[in-house]
Amino acid sequence: MTAAPLLASPLSELAQALEAGNLTSEKLVASAIEAYRASDDNAYIQWCPEQALALAKASDRARKAGAFTGPLMGLPVSVKDLFGVPGLPIHAGCARPLPERWQAAGPVIKALSAQLAPVMGKTHCVELAFGGLGTNSHWGTPANPWDKQVHRVPGGSSSGAGVSLVNGTAALALGTDTAGSIRVPASMTGVAGLKLTAGRWPTQQIVPLSHTLDTPGLMARRVDDLDYAFRALDPVVSKQRVVHTSASELADLTFGVPAAFFWENCSPGIAEAVEAALKMIERAGARLVPFELPGVEQIHELFLKGGVAAPELAAFIREDMPEIVASLDPNVAARLHTAEELSAWEYIQRLQVMTRLSAEAASQMQQVDAVLTPTVTLTPPTVDSLKDPKAYTAANMQALRNTAIGNYLGLCGLSLPVGLDKAGLPVGMQVLSRPWQEERLLGIGQAIERSIGCGPDTLGHHC
Amino acid sequence: MTAAPLLASPLSELAQALEAGNLTSEKLVASAIEAYRASDDNAYIQWCPEQALALAKASDRARKAGAFTGPLMGLPVSVKDLFGVPGLPIHAGCARPLPERWQAAGPVIKALSAQLAPVMGKTHCVELAFGGLGTNSHWGTPANPWDKQVHRVPGGSSSGAGVSLVNGTAALALGTDTAGSIRVPASMTGVAGLKLTAGRWPTQQIVPLSHTLDTPGLMARRVDDLDYAFRALDPVVSKQRVVHTSASELADLTFGVPAAFFWENCSPGIAEAVEAALKMIERAGARLVPFELPGVEQIHELFLKGGVAAPELAAFIREDMPEIVASLDPNVAARLHTAEELSAWEYIQRLQVMTRLSAEAASQMQQVDAVLTPTVTLTPPTVDSLKDPKAYTAANMQALRNTAIGNYLGLCGLSLPVGLDKAGLPVGMQVLSRPWQEERLLGIGQAIERSIGCGPDTLGHHC
Repeated sequence: MTAAPLLASPLSELAQALEAGNLTSEKLVASAIEAYRASDDNAYIQWCPEQALALAKASDRARKAGAFTGPLMGLPVSVKDLFGVPGLPIHAGCARPLPERWQAAGPVIKALSAQLAPVMGKTHCVELAFGGLGTNSHWGTPANPWDKQVHRVPGGSSSGAGVSLVNGTAALALGTDTAGSIRVPASMTGVAGLKLTAGRWPTQQIVPLSHTLDTPGLMARRVDDLDYAFRALDPVVSKQRVVHTSASELADLTFGVPAAFFWENCSPGIAEAVEAALKMIERAGARLVPFELPGVEQIHELFLKGGVAAPELAAFIREDMPEIVASLDPNVAARLHTAEELSAWEYIQRLQVMTRLSAEAASQMQQVDAVLTPTVTLTPPTVDSLKDPKAYTAANMQALRNTAIGNYLGLCGLSLPVGLDKAGLPVGMQVLSRPWQEERLLGIGQAIERSIGCGPDTLGHHC
Repeated sequence: MTAAPLLASPLSELAQALEAGNLTSEKLVASAIEAYRASDDNAYIQWCPEQALALAKASDRARKAGAFTGPLMGLPVSVKDLFGVPGLPIHAGCARPLPERWQAAGPVIKALSAQLAPVMGKTHCVELAFGGLGTNSHWGTPANPWDKQVHRVPGGSSSGAGVSLVNGTAALALGTDTAGSIRVPASMTGVAGLKLTAGRWPTQQIVPLSHTLDTPGLMARRVDDLDYAFRALDPVVSKQRVVHTSASELADLTFGVPAAFFWENCSPGIAEAVEAALKMIERAGARLVPFELPGVEQIHELFLKGGVAAPELAAFIREDMPEIVASLDPNVAARLHTAEELSAWEYIQRLQVMTRLSAEAASQMQQVDAVLTPTVTLTPPTVDSLKDPKAYTAANMQALRNTAIGNYLGLCGLSLPVGLDKAGLPVGMQVLSRPWQEERLLGIGQAIERSIGCGPDTLGHHC
């Protein structure tokens, strides 16, 4: 599995080459356009080569003239079609375009645009981001690039984002995560994904699924790239003039490893791959200790019943786009229908359970540097196997099972690739940290990445 | 209507006399005890003379020894029975005592205790604070002290708080306000009441009605006293070593006066009293301009349907004290029953309406220094007239109609007495300010108070 070589390099190296005049943004974008022509995976709902090329040229000219607009200057990015991008129709996975007001840029897109990062296009997502497998009955499901024979799901809801990295059409992908919508597709396509603490980055002009849980986030070919892009876009960190990347040393770290819940019903080869990675981390000097996050069974039960996202989406649709109900994807419609009947008092109780358990988790997690689990316990299923609504529901809930815990406990987390399962599909490891500890989480993730040496180009070769 | 002369003096004067050695806390508490003996108004669910006297003596001794514990040192206070006070049973208006964990002190009671302010007792309230008239089927309804012939309601839910000031058993009363529970009884008993911006003061260990709207607050015989006590208890202001009271000058102020909504269905004499007060304010040099708060009709509609408080109370009862349902006051039970059926999506929409209108109100209110309305449009009804549930509901909704707007728009506000209505019962004027502008609001309130010259001792004489 090899991406176009040019975009496969670390973001920091690409940026250095651009700055040194050894590379142009035009060349990067041209490489992405070439990769798109060679691809057949339906990653994008909208592909914008002319627009991206024009911005690439402009950024090259600006750089030649001595300007520097930011660390992402000239680097090709794909954007999940849940973000408003001026001038581009937005569907959020729905059958018809959303009202034009949703096209306006929010703070994250404005930051990207201010740095002159070419947007290659809008990537597909699950309708209204309400699903973890990546399926979409209106637009088709992007193909998981790790199975060339059978159409398997790429994970969702940021379903085109991981694919856009693997096929070499983007060096960085913007996504969102409400219950795992970044970490699940990262795990299933063998890339790295960062879910921020909800509230850390603003969500304006991102079509909402859950105003309580939604957060924008990043996907890239490695944790090192996530760290680079996070520092470029985070409103707090990016204001610091000099930014040092300070990866942690594994020998200094203690990881909590839950014994239960996160390992149940693993598809063949998944537990094995994560356990092998844990052994490598331990051999590199880290301490692994048993650690249980609070209330995981209770959270999972809430989540199965729709959690807080389902009623919040129901409220949003009723308020903002009631006309959409008739054309909803049947799987999305079914989940929404249940949410319609939820009572206010039960919703309030769910919020209060979250608040209580989040406080407990934040406190207990001070005992460790991070918590390590498998990201997803399920081999990416074939699209055919999901035709039966019951099969879809079961697979969807299993896909989101481990990641949703991080959202409902208010944590930040990332997923990085650690190997392949028995079916030859990528396996991710989830790293969870306390709220607002993103810098530290990324440092830890880089240390793990170095010790494991996995990435989309090396998966299946030596790891 | 005259209180025990000793407690009728301004808090700042009492404090000065204590500090100068011309008065003792013991004497203040003895005066309160004497007033209690002379009273027959059912203000307290629990009266604690020995405990208060012991603390008064301790504070006198500490002062003699050169200690100063804070501006409220030695000043007798009544506490609404929604606050936990260590060692005192807490009912929150319910038939049986709540579990003992609710007796623990929260931050407000801790601040009071740290200053050695004697707590005279716990004042009655509506069951779980869920009503604006002050009725309580378990414990009886405190008598409005302004009608010696007929048993009229004192306003609620802080139903004993205003009465405790008028009858001279406390110099300051702690209450809470979710839709008007401080401003309504202040208005109906002819005292001043301060509703803080929700979130300004912590609500821990106050039995919750609505975690979104609840706020502790203060009632006193005049705005000047509210200002004094606010500065003594506010976590931000009280940390400042030197605190200057800076009342505003009316000649510098512009007030917004709504033409519609707040004046509808006024009982005889209420609109007249508020209009007369407005004329006095204008004569004193203030500018009055037409001003409409955003979305008042929409908020009122939400409020009539239970707003956000009813479902939040339903969630709390189910989670924390489900056994209480069987013994609920029928009027409280009826409101709660409707809330049980509210859907999550509709509750979420109500919160979002509030958020949107609150932002609009905060922005539009920058055009004026404060907004002035009648506090309550209803003469305190007789207890007999409320026996029919429909009559109760209609009166309750009218009593809370004007004040609830301030809660749902996220404002702070106060009520101060401006005269008597045709039935000889007190009339209050509501002063609403932008969020977190309490200091400014109190300065404005003091300026108005000076120009009008009303208080529980003077009402009906010259104003």
